[in-house]
Amino acid sequence: MTFKIELINHKVIKNAFESISKIVNEITLTADKEGIHLRSLDKSHITFITMELNYKLFDQYQCDEPTKIAVDCTEFTKILKKCKTTDTLELTVDEDNLIILMKGDATRKFKLRQIDMEYDNPIPPQIEHPCNITIQSDLLKDYINDMSLYSEVVQFGVDEDYFIISSEGQNGEAEIKYIHGENIKEYVKSKFAIEKLQDMLKSSKFAKNTILHIGEDMPLKLIMELTTGDGELGFLLAPRLSEE
Amino acid sequence: MTFKIELINHKVIKNAFESISKIVNEITLTADKEGIHLRSLDKSHITFITMELNYKLFDQYQCDEPTKIAVDCTEFTKILKKCKTTDTLELTVDEDNLIILMKGDATRKFKLRQIDMEYDNPIPPQIEHPCNITIQSDLLKDYINDMSLYSEVVQFGVDEDYFIISSEGQNGEAEIKYIHGENIKEYVKSKFAIEKLQDMLKSSKFAKNTILHIGEDMPLKLIMELTTGDGELGFLLAPRLSEE
Amino acid sequence: MTFKIELINHKVIKNAFESISKIVNEITLTADKEGIHLRSLDKSHITFITMELNYKLFDQYQCDEPTKIAVDCTEFTKILKKCKTTDTLELTVDEDNLIILMKGDATRKFKLRQIDMEYDNPIPPQIEHPCNITIQSDLLKDYINDMSLYSEVVQFGVDEDYFIISSEGQNGEAEIKYIHGENIKEYVKSKFAIEKLQDMLKSSKFAKNTILHIGEDMPLKLIMELTTGDGELGFLLAPRLSEE
Repeated sequence: MTFKIELINHKVIKNAFESISKIVNEITLTADKEGIHLRSLDKSHITFITMELNYKLFDQYQCDEPTKIAVDCTEFTKILKKCKTTDTLELTVDEDNLIILMKGDATRKFKLRQIDMEYDNPIPPQIEHPCNITIQSDLLKDYINDMSLYSEVVQFGVDEDYFIISSEGQNGEAEIKYIHGENIKEYVKSKFAIEKLQDMLKSSKFAKNTILHIGEDMPLKLIMELTTGDGELGFLLAPRLSEE
Repeated sequence: MTFKIELINHKVIKNAFESISKIVNEITLTADKEGIHLRSLDKSHITFITMELNYKLFDQYQCDEPTKIAVDCTEFTKILKKCKTTDTLELTVDEDNLIILMKGDATRKFKLRQIDMEYDNPIPPQIEHPCNITIQSDLLKDYINDMSLYSEVVQFGVDEDYFIISSEGQNGEAEIKYIHGENIKEYVKSKFAIEKLQDMLKSSKFAKNTILHIGEDMPLKLIMELTTGDGELGFLLAPRLSEE
Repeated sequence: MTFKIELINHKVIKNAFESISKIVNEITLTADKEGIHLRSLDKSHITFITMELNYKLFDQYQCDEPTKIAVDCTEFTKILKKCKTTDTLELTVDEDNLIILMKGDATRKFKLRQIDMEYDNPIPPQIEHPCNITIQSDLLKDYINDMSLYSEVVQFGVDEDYFIISSEGQNGEAEIKYIHGENIKEYVKSKFAIEKLQDMLKSSKFAKNTILHIGEDMPLKLIMELTTGDGELGFLLAPRLSEE
């Protein structure tokens, strides 16, 4: 057997797939000696997902040769949800399946058929953003939900003191001013689809803090990093047009 | 600025609007030196709402001249729901908007467009009821829900010892006998639409106790009063016909 | 009055009717000196329900002569749900009704019309099964839910060491191996409709443990017994065909 991992604290993976399963239908996980990697682009090319799970995160990690595991994302997420807090999660593969074992009161085995993936792992564009803002993931999630009252589009703005989240519609306007505490040299703003941000933030429990990389009418880079440094979930989101 | 109020314990307003937003679509709040007043009649003229919030209820209250604030009730309630327990709620007005500020981890500002109200604040009819019953608001809410098993109409009856809530339908009957402990001189009964009572009791957390003013085939007056005496939410509900 | 029972710990009855109301529309409860009995067969003749509640279970039990109580099962269950934890539940009958009294803050009385039952209490077939497995009711409920990922049919298998629950579909397979700890002499397997098992296990809180009587392509007998021995809820479920 060339691939076998075990994880007691499987919340990390469950949290990540809360959003991943909302954004893409099929995924290819790539496993090698370093860990497990995911790169995926949604069908409409609006959201790019990257996930890195270092081998140190796992209670047992064996991967003798690079392995690709392509599965239906919704089905995989449904199975993950069956994993109880007290279970140990084990993933292995056979020729046709990803095999998910949950070891607790009983041993529960789920075989998930692997699928043929048309495209290989895409490579995300490298973008340099002028502003980085750190904010609690659950606060950011609440703030984005606030914005959905008036519009489908939210503006992220950064000035010297504040990270400003705002939206406006026929019935009114909403504006949230968050003191960012960063050393900002360039004032920027960009607009994004609220629904896409809400999908991404379904994984807000993945990490306590979220880092936002923001530029002027540029894609948003949203990174959640485990405090141990052993895992990272990232998104790149295309901006909406700003009318002047 | 002529109008500005601040409230830490904003649950009071949130609780009141749980029912108000179910009954009327648009409201005019009238603010003066004494406090904030609301009088509103639903479109089908079945339920009359009155609300009085004394200036003492607020942590800061400034109202230099009488001010009318007309807004869409559903939109206002949606915004109020965004207010977190730890936030301080601030209301101000500009020429066109009611401005709702929530001060917590960040400062969140919502602007809600004011609307043109066709009718001014209506005046509720003055009615003298022979019986007054005091009952815990949450118990009354449960009892009304019990009644919905069999019928859309409930009868409130009062005799020497009991406040009797009853309904009957094709499948059976329900009857609740509550010892009222009041000195009752006239036995009365009236019928009401269960759905309308359920709408009113969505605000059951506004006050621990509810006072019911009941007469023979008369409108019901239902009053919830804050224990501090600084606020009151009241309803007048048209009766349903009793067949003999 | 020939029939009157009182029960403080009414959870037992509420739990039992969680599943009964999903399986049959109308029931006839038979009360005699020994206790209350229920035997009922669903319309499609797939599930047979038996319930025995010994007179010792009740805080007060009076039944001078055998009494039949036929009611709509959904309506009865709706009323039972209104019973609060702190209420005492009292059941009596008059000529036309089952009378349900809940004594707490107030006395709440529900009259449920008795109905005409076409068929009398059916008698369940006597079947001897080669294998008996005991398993925690809530675990069994979870395991059956796991199976619904892939198929509408689950297989129960028993070998020397394991009770094996499995299902398979187009997307994959699931298999749960539970160490049964029994002395098994015959290896057997049978298939059942997952939905029917889920209906039965809505009453999983009735008793901590469930005993499964399993044979080769035989009906399943599922018994939940109160630890006090004063009550039992049982089901007999027709098997699905196994293709070879």
